[in-house]
Amino acid sequence: MRKHFVEELEDLKQRVMYMGGMVETAVHRSVHALIDRDQSLADSVIREIEPEINALELQLDQDCLRLLALQQPMAVDLRFLAAVLRITNDLERIGDLAVNIAQAVGRLLANPTPRPLVDFPLMAERTKWMVRAALDALFRRDVALARQVLITDDEVDALRDQIFRDIIQHMIQAPDTVERGLSQIFVARNLERIADHATNVAEDVIFWVEGVDVRHHTHDHAGQS
Amino acid sequence: MRKHFVEELEDLKQRVMYMGGMVETAVHRSVHALIDRDQSLADSVIREIEPEINALELQLDQDCLRLLALQQPMAVDLRFLAAVLRITNDLERIGDLAVNIAQAVGRLLANPTPRPLVDFPLMAERTKWMVRAALDALFRRDVALARQVLITDDEVDALRDQIFRDIIQHMIQAPDTVERGLSQIFVARNLERIADHATNVAEDVIFWVEGVDVRHHTHDHAGQS
Repeated sequence: MRKHFVEELEDLKQRVMYMGGMVETAVHRSVHALIDRDQSLADSVIREIEPEINALELQLDQDCLRLLALQQPMAVDLRFLAAVLRITNDLERIGDLAVNIAQAVGRLLANPTPRPLVDFPLMAERTKWMVRAALDALFRRDVALARQVLITDDEVDALRDQIFRDIIQHMIQAPDTVERGLSQIFVARNLERIADHATNVAEDVIFWVEGVDVRHHTHDHAGQS
Repeated sequence: MRKHFVEELEDLKQRVMYMGGMVETAVHRSVHALIDRDQSLADSVIREIEPEINALELQLDQDCLRLLALQQPMAVDLRFLAAVLRITNDLERIGDLAVNIAQAVGRLLANPTPRPLVDFPLMAERTKWMVRAALDALFRRDVALARQVLITDDEVDALRDQIFRDIIQHMIQAPDTVERGLSQIFVARNLERIADHATNVAEDVIFWVEGVDVRHHTHDHAGQS
């Protein structure tokens, strides 16, 4: 029985990693659809990847509840299942946010090419790194890596502030860019929220491995919007 | 033992309701701080209410895990505890969003009074209703009420779209209002996200009572940002 349960937990973790891989793909494609103005790449996020992410969330949650009910896990295993319940939710939200970015591609293509944002590719890279690192930390039970994710979130927030200032400045000088500028602001906000959810995953990894709830201690998630 | 567990679940629910009451207060105060330009009301959300909400989330999650570990709940009780784990997270996020709104008060006070938004009070009222109704549905196991919350979310989204159009129009005509307009857009976005989290709570109530996972079926949470 005990052996079997260990295998079930390992299998669950593998499937969370698979869901995480889909989520990484969604973020990667939506960002590159935006940078390369590629509508079909954006469409693949909206029509193919996000529905699969949603289905995976429902399945994984059911499996978590089944394991909780049948196996009466204790201590670290219980924390793992509780963490997975939260992590699947965060991953699904990242999928939603990637869809938001993908949807912005259509709006931006309908307008003249907006002024490129110097800091945007860097912000996208840091955000993608956070998602990847949070998942790696989960896979390897790597608390040190999880803590690096928490620190990197501050960097992403600073980049967002810089991007916002840049866009607002430009909107004031050139009012005909207000709508495009807002689309860019929304994209930056979505990236920032993806980084927040990656932070949540990292916090759940720390909670799972160390039994310490670091939410509300290391980090303040409140942003401007 | 069984009797004791029933009491523990009831006690947990009462404390979720208490947390919900704090969250309602946070939303109410932040909205009214904004409408009445009342900095001290905004400060009370930031300094007093939100930290208490955070502390309640950590406590309630711990109690949930303890009950999961010690009581080996099945079926409806297991679903209840899984729902509470998610609901406390949604309530805590609503607290964060109320803080975001409260923080906007300071920025708006530093500038000339912005043009009042006709639809804003209505959007705030509908959002507050959703939070209250989702909590009532939880308290009374009222699935019909929970479904009304899901429907009302579409109304809030439509109000947000109207507010966005109104502000963007004005920003284009009067570029010196860009920053104030953006603050108003962020506030409307925060309200909309509060409504989304109330929707999540309502979905969890349906899941708890009926065992049906309605996420990704009735409703699409993806918004513009």
